[in-house]
Amino acid sequence: MAEEVKLLGSWGSPFSRRVELALRLKGISYDYIEEDLSNKSPLLLKYNPIHKKVPVFLHGGKPVVESLVILEYIEETWEGDHAILPKDPYERAMARFWSTFVDEKCIPAIWMSCWTEGDMQQNFMIQSKENLSILEGELKGKKFFGGDAIGMVDIAAFFIAHWAGVLQEVAGISLINEEKHPILFKWIEEFMSSSIVMECLPAREGLLAYFQAKKEAIRATKAPVY
Amino acid sequence: MAEEVKLLGSWGSPFSRRVELALRLKGISYDYIEEDLSNKSPLLLKYNPIHKKVPVFLHGGKPVVESLVILEYIEETWEGDHAILPKDPYERAMARFWSTFVDEKCIPAIWMSCWTEGDMQQNFMIQSKENLSILEGELKGKKFFGGDAIGMVDIAAFFIAHWAGVLQEVAGISLINEEKHPILFKWIEEFMSSSIVMECLPAREGLLAYFQAKKEAIRATKAPVY
Repeated sequence: MAEEVKLLGSWGSPFSRRVELALRLKGISYDYIEEDLSNKSPLLLKYNPIHKKVPVFLHGGKPVVESLVILEYIEETWEGDHAILPKDPYERAMARFWSTFVDEKCIPAIWMSCWTEGDMQQNFMIQSKENLSILEGELKGKKFFGGDAIGMVDIAAFFIAHWAGVLQEVAGISLINEEKHPILFKWIEEFMSSSIVMECLPAREGLLAYFQAKKEAIRATKAPVY
Repeated sequence: MAEEVKLLGSWGSPFSRRVELALRLKGISYDYIEEDLSNKSPLLLKYNPIHKKVPVFLHGGKPVVESLVILEYIEETWEGDHAILPKDPYERAMARFWSTFVDEKCIPAIWMSCWTEGDMQQNFMIQSKENLSILEGELKGKKFFGGDAIGMVDIAAFFIAHWAGVLQEVAGISLINEEKHPILFKWIEEFMSSSIVMECLPAREGLLAYFQAKKEAIRATKAPVY
């Protein structure tokens, strides 16, 4: 009997959605458990006591946390039809490099661009645009970061394809520009029109309402969100 | 003919030394090129144009950057006698989790504890001690993080074994306490007494002089170092 696969996630989390996307690309059945992040469950705290965050991936009762670590585990455990990492060690290293670049550089700069103001915001916007131009260069000549099919870097960049647009709207700024980033723009269209990606998309209106409420709350309390 | 292996590093960088340690554990010959980080070479800028940092690993002229990415590449390319990652996918996931924990949590908190003052320093010291206690728990019952032999987490934690002690001395603080972290303390002794680790150690006096000069420079200019 196959071992049970469970995912503790949150509907609006790009990191949970990464794991769902990988599981669906590979055709792996899983039970999804929605977490209330304002009132974390004993299960979440038990299985991710260090970071206390989603996603938590459970395979036969054993937890794996941190979305990129989970993606590697899924790839190594279920080869399946859809590889999310190339076989060649050098190409795998490149996929790991770009996934880390998205996580450590692109997402934080875009996130901070949307929640800061004044000079700080300007600096984060400059960084964001530089990072997006670097990604643009990496995508040149390819349909997906993974080549002809969605791979780990595409999955890591899910935030850029969906969440970033919503956040820009809430913040009233423009970072991903069709004129400046035509290749990345095309990638977003390709990626977002994949039927499997669509199955993993949190509704745009829901995210928009969520982040707009967050913005109002920040304005009211002046609490830092980062 | 085997493809040429080169490493662009800096004598005092814990991240370069990680790569040297992995290469030596596996018995891979390499050419080492010392970089002057105050005057970066065209080679470094060519091969790591995004981060402009050491280490840069070159295999047959092809670059890999980011030390944890390089370690995975080395493991996948040269199986050799000394595996630095376990074979089992779940154990591999755990090794990746802990390596990332060292990189994202432990090293930044220790580094900042040593270069800040006042309340900020106190907060970083509390974080550092909490992180070190978590590592202490993970090491329980094991000689190395990798079990009986040095693995990827041990290599990632090289900073804690050597650099952290020097930095604490420069800052006049104590984070790694033999009473509070007896298992981690024992690990440092075991790890540092390995002949291969010793081959990769920058001399303590050299590091001490380097960081003391840095501290003086900061005091003189009030420039932030983080």
